Amino acid sequence: MNFTVTILGCGSALPTKRHCMSSQVISLRDKLYMVDCGEGTQLQFRAMKLNFRRLGHIFISHLHGDHCFGLPGLISTLGMLGRTSDLHIYAHPDAIALFKPVLDYFCRELPYKVFFHSFNPSLSELIFEDKGLKVISIPLKHRVPTAGFLFEEKQSDKHINREMTDFYKVPIAKMKELKEGADFVTEDEMVIPNCRLTYPADPARRYAYCSDTAYYEKIIPIIEGADVLYHEATFAEADLKRANETFHSSAAQAAEIARKAGVKQLIIGHFSARYTDEDLLLSEAGKIFPNTVLADEKKVFDIGRPRI
Amino acid sequence: MNFTVTILGCGSALPTKRHCMSSQVISLRDKLYMVDCGEGTQLQFRAMKLNFRRLGHIFISHLHGDHCFGLPGLISTLGMLGRTSDLHIYAHPDAIALFKPVLDYFCRELPYKVFFHSFNPSLSELIFEDKGLKVISIPLKHRVPTAGFLFEEKQSDKHINREMTDFYKVPIAKMKELKEGADFVTEDEMVIPNCRLTYPADPARRYAYCSDTAYYEKIIPIIEGADVLYHEATFAEADLKRANETFHSSAAQAAEIARKAGVKQLIIGHFSARYTDEDLLLSEAGKIFPNTVLADEKKVFDIGRPRI
Repeated sequence: MNFTVTILGCGSALPTKRHCMSSQVISLRDKLYMVDCGEGTQLQFRAMKLNFRRLGHIFISHLHGDHCFGLPGLISTLGMLGRTSDLHIYAHPDAIALFKPVLDYFCRELPYKVFFHSFNPSLSELIFEDKGLKVISIPLKHRVPTAGFLFEEKQSDKHINREMTDFYKVPIAKMKELKEGADFVTEDEMVIPNCRLTYPADPARRYAYCSDTAYYEKIIPIIEGADVLYHEATFAEADLKRANETFHSSAAQAAEIARKAGVKQLIIGHFSARYTDEDLLLSEAGKIFPNTVLADEKKVFDIGRPRI
Repeated sequence: MNFTVTILGCGSALPTKRHCMSSQVISLRDKLYMVDCGEGTQLQFRAMKLNFRRLGHIFISHLHGDHCFGLPGLISTLGMLGRTSDLHIYAHPDAIALFKPVLDYFCRELPYKVFFHSFNPSLSELIFEDKGLKVISIPLKHRVPTAGFLFEEKQSDKHINREMTDFYKVPIAKMKELKEGADFVTEDEMVIPNCRLTYPADPARRYAYCSDTAYYEKIIPIIEGADVLYHEATFAEADLKRANETFHSSAAQAAEIARKAGVKQLIIGHFSARYTDEDLLLSEAGKIFPNTVLADEKKVFDIGRPRI
């Protein structure tokens, strides 16, 4: 089963011809989860031919315009497309007071319900869970309260060892229990331990989104060993002073976090409009953490190897 | 002096890959005036390499999201670009209560002031005036209170007839008065009538923006004889029922208004997402009003001939 991230926008606040405002879409099983929703997100979503009906949950890292000004337009459009299923938005508590009056006025006849769920960006806690996924907040260090998100796939079932289940004549009805870890008791009451009948489950895959943030080592224990880390890298080393002033990171700082957290891959994004070529950022990060790649609009990244 | 209209977006509410949400920019003298500001307008503005500093006035036809959801992002961006001069927004009275809290929260440190000016969309009146231009509201017929805008260039000065001013030895200091219509009195007190010393001024050019609206003949006296009329043409004739239900116009209805108002050119826009090719709309309008053209993103239209 594929677990992917599609970049809809990886620029910073000032729009450029090359990058859109922050937004990305995580796809797992038949569901899409959006992180951030800058202006123009719905256009990018459509351009990528993503299915609006599969989107049920939107996570907003912080209340800066370039991360959430696309919400009213997206919510309107979903209504015009005849959506009837609920939409859930996870954001700082202020989001309700800000967006509710706008939606009440502009989206009076919405054929579906929008629920705002508040979370405390200064805590790392489980903020969402469904059949396949957990989302855990990652407190970040920015000018306003901000949290990243760890998308943690739920542990999948073990794989059946067909040869052994045939040998012990395990009936089909018992297979689900085996996958979940149960031992098998034969007709003559012999207990066959689960480990003889199954192969281990695939390791659960983890994707961490950390934007916007200054260099902040406190996130390391939360994102440790993640398959993929998206970390903002707004500035190059030469502009470190500006990064510090604005509570953003340099590419080298993003790489330093990736290295210390022992993640498998680093995607850098949230590029300042001042760089016409991000190869400089890639090079600066790559010296510290070689498996670094640049985010770019419409790029799709795999989070760990696909499941069968 | 050029008087132009640049189309930033001419789609209707549902985003498509071909059209953006409503917005256009009128350019006259050294100033830019924006009409409507759907989501993504600031990106289109930048893509067209228009100068943000020249923009001082934004006119919002009505409070539907596809005509105004781009305002907070544009206002934010102008702040980040270091703008210091005032920005004026002309809109329905509800706009203040809707946008003010959003701007107060997201644009706390704006280095310039934003002024909202309310107007009554059910009246045709002068809502703005500067050195070169008057803007008059055009009450339209839509699901919510809506007004179009007539951009009327101010009458320019007369042209000097050099041969005659040389003959009568008119001093340079008197030229301004002549251009404004004064007669000239020679040293021996002979009165030379103005018409012998000047050529008539160029006729003032007029551009009318009418979107969104059902077919509405009451606008005809206001837009009569305009150089260019932009009129919405959301639907084709086959979808007239839908046009009536949603208080939009068909292309043929837009053309009928253009014909009855005796305008010189008709631009049709605000195309429904259902049409993948607007040639059908152009053809339906063209049968009634031959000088019809299709709006399209990034097209620039001249309003009457350029002035010297």
